[in-house]
Amino acid sequence: MNMDQSWKELNEELGKARALEEAEILFEWDNETLAPPAAMEYTARTMERLAGMYFRIMTGDRLGELLEKCRDRQGTEEEQAVLRAAEKKRRELILVPAEEYEAYSGLKARASALWARARKAEDFERFAPALEEIIACRKRFAAGRAKEGQSLYDVMLDEFEEGFSSEKLDRFFALLRKELVPLLEQIREKGTEIPCSFLQGGYSGEGQEKLAEYLAKYLGFDFERGVMGVSAHPFTTALHSRDVRFTTHYDSRVDHSLFSVIHECGHGIYEQGISPLLVQTAAGEGASMGMHESQSRFYENMIGRNRAFWEPVYPRLQELFPGCLGNIDMETFYRAVNRVEPGPIRIEADELTYSLHIMVRYELEKGLIAGEISVGDLPGLWEKKYEEYLGIRPQSVSQGVLQDIHWSQGSIGYFPSYALGSAFAAQIYGYMNKEMDMEELMRTGRMDVIREYLREHVHQYGKRKNSREILREMTGQEFEPAYYVEYLKEKFRRLYGI
Amino acid sequence: MNMDQSWKELNEELGKARALEEAEILFEWDNETLAPPAAMEYTARTMERLAGMYFRIMTGDRLGELLEKCRDRQGTEEEQAVLRAAEKKRRELILVPAEEYEAYSGLKARASALWARARKAEDFERFAPALEEIIACRKRFAAGRAKEGQSLYDVMLDEFEEGFSSEKLDRFFALLRKELVPLLEQIREKGTEIPCSFLQGGYSGEGQEKLAEYLAKYLGFDFERGVMGVSAHPFTTALHSRDVRFTTHYDSRVDHSLFSVIHECGHGIYEQGISPLLVQTAAGEGASMGMHESQSRFYENMIGRNRAFWEPVYPRLQELFPGCLGNIDMETFYRAVNRVEPGPIRIEADELTYSLHIMVRYELEKGLIAGEISVGDLPGLWEKKYEEYLGIRPQSVSQGVLQDIHWSQGSIGYFPSYALGSAFAAQIYGYMNKEMDMEELMRTGRMDVIREYLREHVHQYGKRKNSREILREMTGQEFEPAYYVEYLKEKFRRLYGI
Repeated sequence: MNMDQSWKELNEELGKARALEEAEILFEWDNETLAPPAAMEYTARTMERLAGMYFRIMTGDRLGELLEKCRDRQGTEEEQAVLRAAEKKRRELILVPAEEYEAYSGLKARASALWARARKAEDFERFAPALEEIIACRKRFAAGRAKEGQSLYDVMLDEFEEGFSSEKLDRFFALLRKELVPLLEQIREKGTEIPCSFLQGGYSGEGQEKLAEYLAKYLGFDFERGVMGVSAHPFTTALHSRDVRFTTHYDSRVDHSLFSVIHECGHGIYEQGISPLLVQTAAGEGASMGMHESQSRFYENMIGRNRAFWEPVYPRLQELFPGCLGNIDMETFYRAVNRVEPGPIRIEADELTYSLHIMVRYELEKGLIAGEISVGDLPGLWEKKYEEYLGIRPQSVSQGVLQDIHWSQGSIGYFPSYALGSAFAAQIYGYMNKEMDMEELMRTGRMDVIREYLREHVHQYGKRKNSREILREMTGQEFEPAYYVEYLKEKFRRLYGI
Repeated sequence: MNMDQSWKELNEELGKARALEEAEILFEWDNETLAPPAAMEYTARTMERLAGMYFRIMTGDRLGELLEKCRDRQGTEEEQAVLRAAEKKRRELILVPAEEYEAYSGLKARASALWARARKAEDFERFAPALEEIIACRKRFAAGRAKEGQSLYDVMLDEFEEGFSSEKLDRFFALLRKELVPLLEQIREKGTEIPCSFLQGGYSGEGQEKLAEYLAKYLGFDFERGVMGVSAHPFTTALHSRDVRFTTHYDSRVDHSLFSVIHECGHGIYEQGISPLLVQTAAGEGASMGMHESQSRFYENMIGRNRAFWEPVYPRLQELFPGCLGNIDMETFYRAVNRVEPGPIRIEADELTYSLHIMVRYELEKGLIAGEISVGDLPGLWEKKYEEYLGIRPQSVSQGVLQDIHWSQGSIGYFPSYALGSAFAAQIYGYMNKEMDMEELMRTGRMDVIREYLREHVHQYGKRKNSREILREMTGQEFEPAYYVEYLKEKFRRLYGI
């Protein structure tokens, strides 16, 4: 069999795996947005079967042989990226024996259910044994992959953010701790009250939907290649770059849906910008979790919470909600959506405190994997760290250690990507601002210029480059968290007159 | 390997196939209701891959061995039905070699595209060669399955409606021709004009949506186990009995969406009524195309176009559209939605002329497969038969021989099921009416009694019984088309005072 034939067959095999993945993605989307309640348990079984078939293809001997045969093939950059991405996925799966993979899937489903019940009952003990099992499993899998001298937690970090280790993250979070915790204290001491009551009440669902569509189009989300839906928790998903979907959720606070739309559009615009040459391949996704989050937070914070962005957009908002915002000037609105208000819940956090929530989780999960912290210590440590970094104490475990589903799903090493994303975004913004006048572009509504620049330097590559390469080649620097800290310090000192 | 182990493995293998089928169903639903335009071609590729995997499982040696091993297993009735349904599906697929299966899929896609273009261009010649290929393919596949002395068309009929042959259908359609064609002539000669202009205009989409939801709930479609959507052409689909979906379409004519909802709810209530013991199995679908259509037409015509049905419902309709219907009494409305108006388009046909449209198609496809009619003869014969049976001539091929997509998709032998469905429905209604006072139940809104009766005698069985068995065991008679003819004659003679 010659190389071209092997390559063709490899792509057929990967094509089958991709079709199964897309089916799973569609089922997830459908579950969250539409499926009838009674379908749940049956859909779960169907998805398990699809996942099983995917696992067998990805870990199968046939794929192994074909990958081996194609290893030295001189393909295009895209083709080589597909090969690398497929090899990485196979590597991650193959170290888990098929029986254990299924047992692990079962464990995750059970742990998530227990987490939901424990959270409702405000009873951490109910969840603790399952979390211990999850941690043991994750450690066992990581041990099988660990390189000489690599800690198990570093293996997990690398899975979500290639090339990032706890050494790098320790430095990153140390900087945040050193700079942001005192800044937050200063803001709290100053005690400036920023009025924001006008953000709540009187915003019709219909008006919010119109606003959502307007914003998505304004930012450049392409409805030829994507759709918007409604779900309990906003999310973005993509079958591939020609079918990108995001949701929002309408409640009584207009800024909830508004910023969730801008955030999810950041994810969506990323997916839509991936090169057509990578469509429906293993490399046709965002570079990493952190790089994805960088784009959503770039849009949400650097753009969406920038005064210049609102200059052309705020009048439109007033038009949509004359009763609520007719008498509120833009500056008042701008300050309201940027106010700092430490609270116990991560997903409701403001721009400044967000990464402090992540820092708590990072320190705890790192300690858990290293064996320095036991599961039983978590609720107490959680409260202690919230007190220390955010100056508040959660009033219950559902508002504390049980608020996030991630650990129950085995996602350990995942949280740091959220904070890294924000820091990547600030570095990208800082660099772009040297290349072009970002605020002038926002003031004149030139979202296309910003979007095109990001597409060219970030989006198009999909998994052709990892997040470190993208940052280095775009900004000429390695990952540099100082951008993030400086950005936050400057913005919030000015806002609070410190 | 003992029998229980084989049975377990058989169900795992069939479970994978079912998961792939459900994924395809979900993609189809999504395509029609939501997916962005640019996704089309990529979704087609994904569905092809899923279909390929399904085909390999269903025709694979492993499934063959497991079916063989389980053949003599003494299972429950449901288990035996699953075995029979799986064997039937395998039999239908296995005679097509894998390469030819893919070529045939390609041909169908090409033929459907050519059909759409030919229809738009009003140019039958563009479609003719592809139709010839389709016919040749279908004949070749049927030849591989034909029993001693069985005609190829009978093989195709049996595929859609087990136990029905052209001999039976010839008798059926001969009766329709003898009784309905003269009845239609009498109606036309009498020339009674039934006013119906009030059905058009002024019906808001919002009001129609409320009406659609109201009707679906009123009929007993269960929204815990189903959803309603909107698409260009109304349809019903089911992943399984716990996830049943139908669509409607809102235009300026209120009766279009109204009767499409009642019709699709008939399909949906059937699927929701299938025994939970058959969920997600090869036997967990309706008995046949004809039996499915019997339930949709039972609801649409026997129920939805019955005066008694509207007695409790019509005031609700007037409430929703006071401007349009406030001054229209129920009798006027009843007559308007039952008026006879022969036209060239099947899917717009009234209750009386519907099966005459089918008769034209039956005679033509039977002749095509027997080689007595050539593809080139179709447009001329089509016009001739419409003139003869319906007294009209289509003004163009798009209103004539090119109006339906079915043949381009290889569905030959499928059309008769539509007429059979109407006739099954009349037989079922006739029988039920002896058991209970159907009109009294409608008048008092006891849709639950009617639905439960159908569930017990028809729906619950899924594919455990074929349509002939269901009819025989329910009504104590073989299929008897006289019910249908008598029902139509009585209804329309009375309506037109003949």
